[in-house]
Amino acid sequence: MATVKTKRERIKFASDNVAGACPEVLDAVLKANDGDSTPYGNDQISAELQKKFSELFEKDVIVFPTASGTAANALALATMTPSYGNIYCHKLSHINTDECGAPEFYTGGGKLVTLNGINGKITPEELDQSITGKGIVHHTQPASVSITQVCETGEVYQLDEIKKISEITHKHNLNMHMDGARFANALTALNCTPAEMTWKSGIDVLSFGATKNGCIAAEAIIFFNKDLVGNIAFLMKRAGHLLSKMRFVSAQLDAYISNDVWLRNARHANKMGKKLSEGLAKHNSIKLAYPTEANEVFAKFPRNMIEHLNSEGYKMNEDELDGQAVRLVAAWNTQESDVDQLLETLKKSN
Amino acid sequence: MATVKTKRERIKFASDNVAGACPEVLDAVLKANDGDSTPYGNDQISAELQKKFSELFEKDVIVFPTASGTAANALALATMTPSYGNIYCHKLSHINTDECGAPEFYTGGGKLVTLNGINGKITPEELDQSITGKGIVHHTQPASVSITQVCETGEVYQLDEIKKISEITHKHNLNMHMDGARFANALTALNCTPAEMTWKSGIDVLSFGATKNGCIAAEAIIFFNKDLVGNIAFLMKRAGHLLSKMRFVSAQLDAYISNDVWLRNARHANKMGKKLSEGLAKHNSIKLAYPTEANEVFAKFPRNMIEHLNSEGYKMNEDELDGQAVRLVAAWNTQESDVDQLLETLKKSN
Amino acid sequence: MATVKTKRERIKFASDNVAGACPEVLDAVLKANDGDSTPYGNDQISAELQKKFSELFEKDVIVFPTASGTAANALALATMTPSYGNIYCHKLSHINTDECGAPEFYTGGGKLVTLNGINGKITPEELDQSITGKGIVHHTQPASVSITQVCETGEVYQLDEIKKISEITHKHNLNMHMDGARFANALTALNCTPAEMTWKSGIDVLSFGATKNGCIAAEAIIFFNKDLVGNIAFLMKRAGHLLSKMRFVSAQLDAYISNDVWLRNARHANKMGKKLSEGLAKHNSIKLAYPTEANEVFAKFPRNMIEHLNSEGYKMNEDELDGQAVRLVAAWNTQESDVDQLLETLKKSN
Amino acid sequence: MATVKTKRERIKFASDNVAGACPEVLDAVLKANDGDSTPYGNDQISAELQKKFSELFEKDVIVFPTASGTAANALALATMTPSYGNIYCHKLSHINTDECGAPEFYTGGGKLVTLNGINGKITPEELDQSITGKGIVHHTQPASVSITQVCETGEVYQLDEIKKISEITHKHNLNMHMDGARFANALTALNCTPAEMTWKSGIDVLSFGATKNGCIAAEAIIFFNKDLVGNIAFLMKRAGHLLSKMRFVSAQLDAYISNDVWLRNARHANKMGKKLSEGLAKHNSIKLAYPTEANEVFAKFPRNMIEHLNSEGYKMNEDELDGQAVRLVAAWNTQESDVDQLLETLKKSN
Repeated sequence: MATVKTKRERIKFASDNVAGACPEVLDAVLKANDGDSTPYGNDQISAELQKKFSELFEKDVIVFPTASGTAANALALATMTPSYGNIYCHKLSHINTDECGAPEFYTGGGKLVTLNGINGKITPEELDQSITGKGIVHHTQPASVSITQVCETGEVYQLDEIKKISEITHKHNLNMHMDGARFANALTALNCTPAEMTWKSGIDVLSFGATKNGCIAAEAIIFFNKDLVGNIAFLMKRAGHLLSKMRFVSAQLDAYISNDVWLRNARHANKMGKKLSEGLAKHNSIKLAYPTEANEVFAKFPRNMIEHLNSEGYKMNEDELDGQAVRLVAAWNTQESDVDQLLETLKKSN
Repeated sequence: MATVKTKRERIKFASDNVAGACPEVLDAVLKANDGDSTPYGNDQISAELQKKFSELFEKDVIVFPTASGTAANALALATMTPSYGNIYCHKLSHINTDECGAPEFYTGGGKLVTLNGINGKITPEELDQSITGKGIVHHTQPASVSITQVCETGEVYQLDEIKKISEITHKHNLNMHMDGARFANALTALNCTPAEMTWKSGIDVLSFGATKNGCIAAEAIIFFNKDLVGNIAFLMKRAGHLLSKMRFVSAQLDAYISNDVWLRNARHANKMGKKLSEGLAKHNSIKLAYPTEANEVFAKFPRNMIEHLNSEGYKMNEDELDGQAVRLVAAWNTQESDVDQLLETLKKSN
Repeated sequence: MATVKTKRERIKFASDNVAGACPEVLDAVLKANDGDSTPYGNDQISAELQKKFSELFEKDVIVFPTASGTAANALALATMTPSYGNIYCHKLSHINTDECGAPEFYTGGGKLVTLNGINGKITPEELDQSITGKGIVHHTQPASVSITQVCETGEVYQLDEIKKISEITHKHNLNMHMDGARFANALTALNCTPAEMTWKSGIDVLSFGATKNGCIAAEAIIFFNKDLVGNIAFLMKRAGHLLSKMRFVSAQLDAYISNDVWLRNARHANKMGKKLSEGLAKHNSIKLAYPTEANEVFAKFPRNMIEHLNSEGYKMNEDELDGQAVRLVAAWNTQESDVDQLLETLKKSN
Repeated sequence: MATVKTKRERIKFASDNVAGACPEVLDAVLKANDGDSTPYGNDQISAELQKKFSELFEKDVIVFPTASGTAANALALATMTPSYGNIYCHKLSHINTDECGAPEFYTGGGKLVTLNGINGKITPEELDQSITGKGIVHHTQPASVSITQVCETGEVYQLDEIKKISEITHKHNLNMHMDGARFANALTALNCTPAEMTWKSGIDVLSFGATKNGCIAAEAIIFFNKDLVGNIAFLMKRAGHLLSKMRFVSAQLDAYISNDVWLRNARHANKMGKKLSEGLAKHNSIKLAYPTEANEVFAKFPRNMIEHLNSEGYKMNEDELDGQAVRLVAAWNTQESDVDQLLETLKKSN
């Protein structure tokens, strides 16, 4: 039989974090291992990251590498949100639903004010109306706004959408955070520059995700607004996120943003997502829940199809998003044959 | 000349965390990268760690891998210390002096009650006298005791010392934590079993260090007392220490404890530490500050010697311990020639 | 003219906390001042409160007096909610909108999951659907439910409504809190016993409000479920809510619940609220926003009326509830003439 | 017999917080109850406190009244100490030993660095040597210094001692807090002005205690350095320390600092302390542990004396300070006959 069904292959599409690291990133880790190195980020590779990210973003930025996306988000938000502060975000946002309260932990008890938005995106109008109570001691205080790019329904914020949200944010003197867990997927979908998708659109601090798109464990907190850096170095250390052999995280990031590795990986994942989406759309009984704009596909399946897929080893659990849509995610290492195989398996479910 | 002096080599002895990972650990990382894998520690490698550590410790333990030693300590302590709790520790302990208040952060405001001890070790008598105020609402409440093995002066707690401290700890119904950042170095120094140095001596929870002794970024929180596990899984996630591609941390630990890799590394580091210590002791003007029992050497140098070493590229800063002793640490990859080179350089300082 | 308009009188109806204390409570404070007394709640008056509240609630309860309603709520919730826990409450609830994040502070970063409800009350159905994610490490964990009685729109939860919410709460193994800031007003509105409105309807812990209804600064945290008491004594002390001369708080509570003082005060306030509500309803241009069930009246006024009232010294600011309804609150000391005066003033606004 | 021994009288000397409020303070509370008043400190009495305290301290100060001394201390320290900050204080200080970790709670996990001092006072030299590690990310960061006046051994910091400590504090760019739980007792002992004992000696923020010296529950946080006020208003609200009927706290403070009531009370308490101290010193078998400089007496008694006193109804428990000295405290309402009675009782213990 052509398609060998090992258990391992079948977790494909469950998420893009099921994939390992791409060759360039692994090579960089091996190379970083050569010789001794100053610990705690005071090494040569980490030092050069500052310059490389500054070039990438066409702006003098400050970068803090970290091994965890949840930590990147929470630390970033903690620099812009006091313990009694409000973080405005979409109700489906990862920081609200999937980080076990990390922003609350790192801010010392901040409040996530959740917006309904349209699909997975927040709207400037709802945001504007929600920012109230400033200066009144009885109310938690408006402090920051966070959007996710790619957002939690697989859609991508357009540049003008980001700009409008940033304008509202800054109009109220709040700060603007982007959770870029799938930054590269969004960037290649929009076909714009990193600068355009971030500080040129009003982003103050970015969680730059790399793990899902070809790294082992590597993210970066990137400050476009340097005034916000504040005490993050102490918070990172205090939280155990200043790794002693930090060079290994930095080396991953270095390789990731060099030679367009990250863009290549993301373009491929998006392409596989599109292929999968189009394949699913051909089924009469399957309905796409949201437009597929990057590497995530949300679709509603008849129950028997889900059961069949799972019986074949897939992990197509119904998503909790709305009790109906199932999420399938293509990764940098998803093969055309993986997509074909899933679509083939689907056919047999009837 | 045989010894080429690059800047890189000269940071040797600054700490054991300047070393990279040993070949077996790197190989395991590469191997773990092969194929997709369930995220967040629900992979095969992570699952098997439970069994392997249980065999290693001759007891059914519960293991939480993490990339950070500071996080391992703070998370472990948070399972045994309420926000109003006291953690008794040596005044020089890493948790008190070098983690920027991580235990305070993770416990939600716990208090480190510092003991003077003798050299770097706490004594049962001082501990016993310090545990007061239980049940009185005005006082922070005695909760846990933490010792470091190898301790902060390079000395190793003997088994009977650990037992006596544990007895006092348990007599007061507190819990006992060991910061085993250099667990393997202590173990091989004592030439005992992992079980003997931990639960058989009364340790309830262990921070099992692996990073310094040949890993990239890998530690494990090991519960001998399962009742203490509590909510650590939620705390880890909430703090950003549940990595999505956790298998890469687990793979390091797996390789590290397999085939005596960890013991081999530690024995070598200790041997190099001893060689260095003996070499230093031969100098009339150098005085060992503490006995060298594992891989750390503390010595008092004349100022001109320190200056000479530093001018030659070493990083022999005076330690803050007491304003006098300098710490030199041998690692798993320290060469005999590294030691010879340093001793040779010293000779030329006169 | 009969009605003398001093500035002082005109803040009437802004809230019931503009009123001072009733004579019985003041007398008790004076009496408590006679002689020395053991501090920190170890006095005779405080000790007897346990028995008196147990009699009042027909159950052996545990009582913690406190001077602050916000503290009472937050401390109560902290006994039933871990740092990563969810507190389910109405979006308009005082704990969500008017305590500057006190529950988040006291729980160490808990999350308030806000429900839309119907008017100011949460519904069992919405609550049931919102309690998800239990045991999944990525999600903050369902922990407790809080309802306000009288609720934030002036409506009173009926006994069967409380029971149904409690059933859902306990079905999911969560705990049930009642913010009883206007407990007496609700109780007299329902004409039931304290037991019926609390533990007999499934309440586990109650914030028993007394300040608004005739005390200076006196609230009580009342545990019907003693298993939840936990560490509250340490949390109270740690937060500065264990007053040294606690007897003065206890004395207020003692007088308040003795001789039906509290019920008399509440009945009168409710009666004045009803009178005011009926008076307003007679105006064609005024519309009651919610039914007046206790001492709070919510009504929508034409803007010119509000402006006229304010020009006459009232503080009839538009409420933030929905941008339209204005809240007027009758207190234990509101006079019939106060109501008449306001209605009279209204007439002149045309 | 003239001296009637009720249980109540015998708790005298256990602390000065066993006393009730003085007549002027009670009258002020009664008077404040007259009529309605804007809540949450927006009342006339609270507003005028700003001016009155500014006059008292000969400087434009900002005042926050609160009902709790522990809260006053912790809130004050939270304005000058980040979560990763060090608070330097005497090992016996109330904030370290008797507030169940309130400073740690309010700062979000700050560290109290305890100094040995001489008797109960910290010394500039030890403080200077202890302030280390600034700017190094591994260390908790020096932030603030706190001294207690009267200190925990009953001694009073002299003006030049305060100045020298403040100089060290400010030399390191830290901020200076005074826990003035017994501010008036110290002030009258030194016979200086409030300005001299505070900002003229370098104090930035003061916890101004009034409860022990004749109030019901009233303290004030006083900012001499206005830059430090920061977010304290939000922290107070969030912690439940912004009482709705705040006017009753303000009224106490108002009466307390008017017409020298506070000075009269303190002078009397000190006088009674001195009388007691002199009486005890006449016993061969009793040894004063520290000089009696205000209203607190620390003395070492033979065990049989303590037992005799306790059998007569006193609460002369051995103090935890050092396992030997017993603390006796005179209050504003201590009578000469109370002192005589205790001394008389002592005589009979042989």
